[in-house]
Amino acid sequence: MISVILLGAGNVATHLYKAFQASNDVTVKQWFNRSLKPIETYKNEVEILDDISQLTEADIYILAVSDDAISELSSKLPFENRFVVHTSGSVNAYDIDKKNRRGVFYPLQTFSKSATVDFSEVPICLETLVKTDYKTLKSLAISISNHVKRVNSDQRASLHLAAVFVNNFTNQIYRVAHEITESQGAEFDMLKPLILETAKKVQDMSPYKAQTGPAKRNDKKTIKKHLKALENEHHKAIYNLLTESIKKTHGR
Amino acid sequence: MISVILLGAGNVATHLYKAFQASNDVTVKQWFNRSLKPIETYKNEVEILDDISQLTEADIYILAVSDDAISELSSKLPFENRFVVHTSGSVNAYDIDKKNRRGVFYPLQTFSKSATVDFSEVPICLETLVKTDYKTLKSLAISISNHVKRVNSDQRASLHLAAVFVNNFTNQIYRVAHEITESQGAEFDMLKPLILETAKKVQDMSPYKAQTGPAKRNDKKTIKKHLKALENEHHKAIYNLLTESIKKTHGR
Repeated sequence: MISVILLGAGNVATHLYKAFQASNDVTVKQWFNRSLKPIETYKNEVEILDDISQLTEADIYILAVSDDAISELSSKLPFENRFVVHTSGSVNAYDIDKKNRRGVFYPLQTFSKSATVDFSEVPICLETLVKTDYKTLKSLAISISNHVKRVNSDQRASLHLAAVFVNNFTNQIYRVAHEITESQGAEFDMLKPLILETAKKVQDMSPYKAQTGPAKRNDKKTIKKHLKALENEHHKAIYNLLTESIKKTHGR
Repeated sequence: MISVILLGAGNVATHLYKAFQASNDVTVKQWFNRSLKPIETYKNEVEILDDISQLTEADIYILAVSDDAISELSSKLPFENRFVVHTSGSVNAYDIDKKNRRGVFYPLQTFSKSATVDFSEVPICLETLVKTDYKTLKSLAISISNHVKRVNSDQRASLHLAAVFVNNFTNQIYRVAHEITESQGAEFDMLKPLILETAKKVQDMSPYKAQTGPAKRNDKKTIKKHLKALENEHHKAIYNLLTESIKKTHGR
């Protein structure tokens, strides 16, 4: 049994809490947040606290707080030489105060308040500065996920950056598509099966192989027609840049 | 029972053929292609032909050929005043030779040779120039799909253009993410659950509401870190443009 103390009350903290509670191999000993309000619902299941001096002993302390808060919170911890990890994709493990043994437990997924998450499908990237801590962290990760991977800082940074592309930028592309259809009174809903299929396709095929369309074919007639139809200069700029990008990738 | 004659042998034609064959309401009377080779596999199930003068009668003739071939093929049809549709998202219905009654049967999905398609989930956009033909075309569409919609030319053009965004451009974003992870020896595979989740999220939530991340938060520190990490100028340009686009959308 691995004992865990959770710090923070955002989406990552809450989803982690639920995943740990559902696991037979993990016990959440305490849940700290600077304000009790967001975690009050759970007070009958777990000890909740807002006084950092009351933190007890545990195998792993998880700082599931915003990037900017990690360093300061870690320096306020009232103990030394225990095992402390953060959950950020972009913060260095060395940003955790060095009085404790440090590591990273980065779940690579988008978490929203409402949607439930099947954690068994969430990749978790692990890093420890003290070699002997890795075994503990791995046990914790595999207790909730089937996709656990040791990554170094550069690899984690590149995954976090790539995640911004496939999550935030892709979502913005959907948004632009929404604006384009709406401007002609067409329904964005009609695009939803295509959105899903595009994401499914690259689950077993490289994006390189999966590519189709006018840019890949260098179909100048269709490209010209599309650019003419785009009224919004900003949409036009995105169309041009990504068309160039596809041409470049496919040697056009 | 609706009788159909299919012309063309590309991905759309082949997937349509299979969907029609699986339906109890449609019979494919003939399958024409200028070369028999790609459709020879089906010669025991359907009459295949490469001589256009041998086309027989049917309720609907479907020109499932490339955009550039539609006009010419339609003018070669050896009959008049029959119902002829094309399957293109971007070609005008008026491009079909006017000796026949014209329409559009546009399935809004990405088709690849290998992957099987569940046509019941594919939206089909319909347009007819002769009003009385609509009923026939709708019957054909609902025999294979649960998402049938009448759209005018402008709406269809905007859907086709938006489809390039959510399919080709999104896929290129995946490709860039692949390049970013590979450059640091990280695994693109780790991003696959996030790719799927991002597409699933907008099935019930608008892309506007689904957005998260550094650009939406206007988190300058992370954005700066990302831009520094991006070595490829082309990737940097995409990062900048889409970050600006998100900021604009969310009033940052």
